[in-house]
Amino acid sequence: MSDRGTKVRLIPLGGLGEIGKNMMVVECGEDIIVIDCGVMFPEEEMLGVDLVIPDVAYLLENKDRVRGIVITHGHEDHIGALPYILKQLNLPVYSTRLTNGLISVKLKEHGLLADAELAVVNPGTPFHLGQLRLEFFRVSHSIPDAAGVAIFTPLGVIVHTGDFKFDHTPVDGFRTDVARLAELGTEGVLLLMSDSTYAEVPGYTASERALELPFDNLMGNSSGRVIVACFASLVSRMQQVINAAYAHNRRVFVAGRSMVDNLHMAAEMGYLNLPPGILLNANELKKLPDREIAILATGSQGEPTSVLTRIANRDHRNIQIQKGDTVVLSATPIPGNEVLVSRTVDNLFREGAHVLYSAVANMHVHGHGSQEELKLMLSLVKPKYFVPVHGEYRHLLLHSRIAHSMGIPPENTFVMVDGEILEVTSRGGRIAGKIPSDYVYVDGLSVGDIGTVVLRDRRTLSRDGMIVVIMTIDKQTGKLAARPDIVSRGFVEPENYDELIEESRKVVTRVLEKGRDRLNEIGYVNTRVKESLSDFLYQRTKRRPMILPVSVEV
Amino acid sequence: MSDRGTKVRLIPLGGLGEIGKNMMVVECGEDIIVIDCGVMFPEEEMLGVDLVIPDVAYLLENKDRVRGIVITHGHEDHIGALPYILKQLNLPVYSTRLTNGLISVKLKEHGLLADAELAVVNPGTPFHLGQLRLEFFRVSHSIPDAAGVAIFTPLGVIVHTGDFKFDHTPVDGFRTDVARLAELGTEGVLLLMSDSTYAEVPGYTASERALELPFDNLMGNSSGRVIVACFASLVSRMQQVINAAYAHNRRVFVAGRSMVDNLHMAAEMGYLNLPPGILLNANELKKLPDREIAILATGSQGEPTSVLTRIANRDHRNIQIQKGDTVVLSATPIPGNEVLVSRTVDNLFREGAHVLYSAVANMHVHGHGSQEELKLMLSLVKPKYFVPVHGEYRHLLLHSRIAHSMGIPPENTFVMVDGEILEVTSRGGRIAGKIPSDYVYVDGLSVGDIGTVVLRDRRTLSRDGMIVVIMTIDKQTGKLAARPDIVSRGFVEPENYDELIEESRKVVTRVLEKGRDRLNEIGYVNTRVKESLSDFLYQRTKRRPMILPVSVEV
Repeated sequence: MSDRGTKVRLIPLGGLGEIGKNMMVVECGEDIIVIDCGVMFPEEEMLGVDLVIPDVAYLLENKDRVRGIVITHGHEDHIGALPYILKQLNLPVYSTRLTNGLISVKLKEHGLLADAELAVVNPGTPFHLGQLRLEFFRVSHSIPDAAGVAIFTPLGVIVHTGDFKFDHTPVDGFRTDVARLAELGTEGVLLLMSDSTYAEVPGYTASERALELPFDNLMGNSSGRVIVACFASLVSRMQQVINAAYAHNRRVFVAGRSMVDNLHMAAEMGYLNLPPGILLNANELKKLPDREIAILATGSQGEPTSVLTRIANRDHRNIQIQKGDTVVLSATPIPGNEVLVSRTVDNLFREGAHVLYSAVANMHVHGHGSQEELKLMLSLVKPKYFVPVHGEYRHLLLHSRIAHSMGIPPENTFVMVDGEILEVTSRGGRIAGKIPSDYVYVDGLSVGDIGTVVLRDRRTLSRDGMIVVIMTIDKQTGKLAARPDIVSRGFVEPENYDELIEESRKVVTRVLEKGRDRLNEIGYVNTRVKESLSDFLYQRTKRRPMILPVSVEV
Repeated sequence: MSDRGTKVRLIPLGGLGEIGKNMMVVECGEDIIVIDCGVMFPEEEMLGVDLVIPDVAYLLENKDRVRGIVITHGHEDHIGALPYILKQLNLPVYSTRLTNGLISVKLKEHGLLADAELAVVNPGTPFHLGQLRLEFFRVSHSIPDAAGVAIFTPLGVIVHTGDFKFDHTPVDGFRTDVARLAELGTEGVLLLMSDSTYAEVPGYTASERALELPFDNLMGNSSGRVIVACFASLVSRMQQVINAAYAHNRRVFVAGRSMVDNLHMAAEMGYLNLPPGILLNANELKKLPDREIAILATGSQGEPTSVLTRIANRDHRNIQIQKGDTVVLSATPIPGNEVLVSRTVDNLFREGAHVLYSAVANMHVHGHGSQEELKLMLSLVKPKYFVPVHGEYRHLLLHSRIAHSMGIPPENTFVMVDGEILEVTSRGGRIAGKIPSDYVYVDGLSVGDIGTVVLRDRRTLSRDGMIVVIMTIDKQTGKLAARPDIVSRGFVEPENYDELIEESRKVVTRVLEKGRDRLNEIGYVNTRVKESLSDFLYQRTKRRPMILPVSVEV
């Protein structure tokens, strides 16, 4: 096969802090393939934004060449943007079986399932997109049926690990397929994209199985109820809780819509083994002795509307903390969630629970490989080019140094940022440009109608509130027809209001009287009112509320 | 001495998450003593708030009995509220020498130094407040001249540790005075209040001295400039950086107003030893070879306006990252700051620096005692009653369990919340009630004029923005005199605006026409407009902007 003139291009898109996580574009010849299609959760200053999705302008411009979307696993940050992107680009979506189930649930919620083209592909079974052959390989991660993907291009094989760790004794049975990776490596791999999330962490990540004994002790030794919170997609953790509960004659109540849905789907599809009669309903929960109860709940990240947070706030319909309860947060806080998690733990303690959480108990292992596993991946795959993905910039950089330490030349290692184009030919690889890759904000029903102006205004409003100045101007004379009126929100408490507002009215009146021959020029009036009032209020309060002058002509 | 009828009362105030940290009220007979007077930094949902201070309504009600404020050390969370509280209660303030210096600087900034009554008291020297004798004892902490305080009451001695660890080889020379603590313990201590900040952490906290070798290696082995960020009050860390720089023939540039101020004050007062000629000015910084430069900077918490953040954002006047720079964040992120710190680290890596931060390098030890030190304190002091302070609820609870494990009966241990009153008599201790203990918000120049209404409005504004509806109503006919006008901010981007706003005007017009015989009833009109428009917009956008109807009668 001649590869003269053949090019492979990689473009990471829309990772919000993390790079190449939510979407990776792979181009070869006339074919474009999209790997993953996830959402990110907004940063603190993205006020009011519900979700952030990648900007797919580039794909829309090249829509005739885009062959399909390949999904590595069923976490939100890999599938969550599908409902928004498929509306713009109706592409076939390829995934393993459980991932397909999770995608189906999501598209159904959005009324998009009927029109979607979803294909289940088993690891090891080749499939084709355009001229390209692809193949999933199994990886272990914190959700069953996770996969990486190999893309066979004329220039060589591209391997994308997806999110992975090497768990040789996984609870869900899904091990990373070291044999297939070694085979690919032996045949020769052009380029590896590998998960960098835990590139800061030395050593190996523990196996899920390491939690078997702690959960067994927990269920066996606790004299009261045991409440375990974990991610709703962490099927293997649910399995361990269920197994340990069953072994110690406890039945399990499952709380939280996403957890209930996932549990039933996983059980129906054979990814979760439910011993007969293990599940409790809300009525039975009230009647059974405490010693025979375990509860699985959402809320391990302190999410405000989750079950655990509502329990902690004494705000849950079926579950109140009672004497003897042991609560386990089987998770570590995601960066940014530390304060929410601490608050939940504090409130659970206040309610009288015995609480096991990450700072004082090891009741969680994470789903990403640590440094030694990243090295093992590099050893197996032996790529010519290396692109660390999935991680914030520092993680990618540390991962690239790991690659250097294993003999991959720095000039063959590319730490990219979103939108950058890596171009690989038979002569070498280089960053060949950059496409626009903004974030697209989802707020309520709208996708993309929130931008920098709205967010800047929300920030101003959130800091110091706002003041509306209503000026009634006589159309004929161009003079004030009444005293200016002032309304404020989020500025000062109403009881401290009167004097300041009265003085503000005077300031506005003075400005309007000075410029009274120009009151018909709305731009002039608004600017002068804004400036004078803003200066006056800043001097008096050291605050700058948003000032909104409104002229009414009568 | 008869202690019949004598009572001691303790009331923690205004800790915002942490309890008894910023202010502790101790009452005995006719005397009230205040320990510490700190600020807290606002939580995420306290939009626009600059600082939070304790509510001292109780002290104001009892101002004739309040004898003075005793400050344990010079950190913001222990002295920062003095400018606000002293304006309301002009009390004498007692502290050790460096703490006094820091307080003086702060009061001077607020123009309050002339009227303040500040007293320097050396550890071991008794002083009197009302009928009570008090005495400071030295503790080691992450600032020099830190102290705990013993209060000699007719019922027995009350010991308050302040923030402490047991550092037997401190860099600043200030060891926790184990001898005096043991003496007090042997004589008999009624009640101990002890720092709980690190009650989750097993073992011992390392000595500041443990950083000597890492800093020496850093300065010796780095081929380029070395930039170290730490807390501006961490004088001993500055000393270590300066010593290591000096040993390796580097001179030190100090960047950041608070760090420069503290360095000079500490040096003048003899708490910091500056080798002659060690400091660089901005001009010299540009001329000296990289290998001979060290920089001390603010910003170890990723604070937006700090030096390190500005360097990371390529926004600092004198310092730009250049090839060969090594940057050290000599701190761990305070909970809530993780995201800011990560962003700074990422940006420094992007600029090309070699970055050492808490996840990958041990370049920090913290200032609070771990579990074994908490036990040592309990062993030395052997109190009858125990009140864990300084920490979030879970820390206090874990600290109380440590006390139980050492034989202090649970009924003599009090995990309090702010505002609760612990009353101790010769017959025992009990929670005897609760006083109001709200937070007081400082926003700009105002203290306390921000409350729940303002914060609720700011939250609404920050989420979905706002819409002002201007209705011009004919006074005589009570009818609409013109089409309603609509202005919005923070809701949707202007370019997506026209159609939605046009429809909104129609909705408002319809409402007003329906109720046209009641247009003079402003309350009725406003409610109907708000409801209808809110429903319409929610249906169209799934968002609920604040709606502010304004009627102009003409």
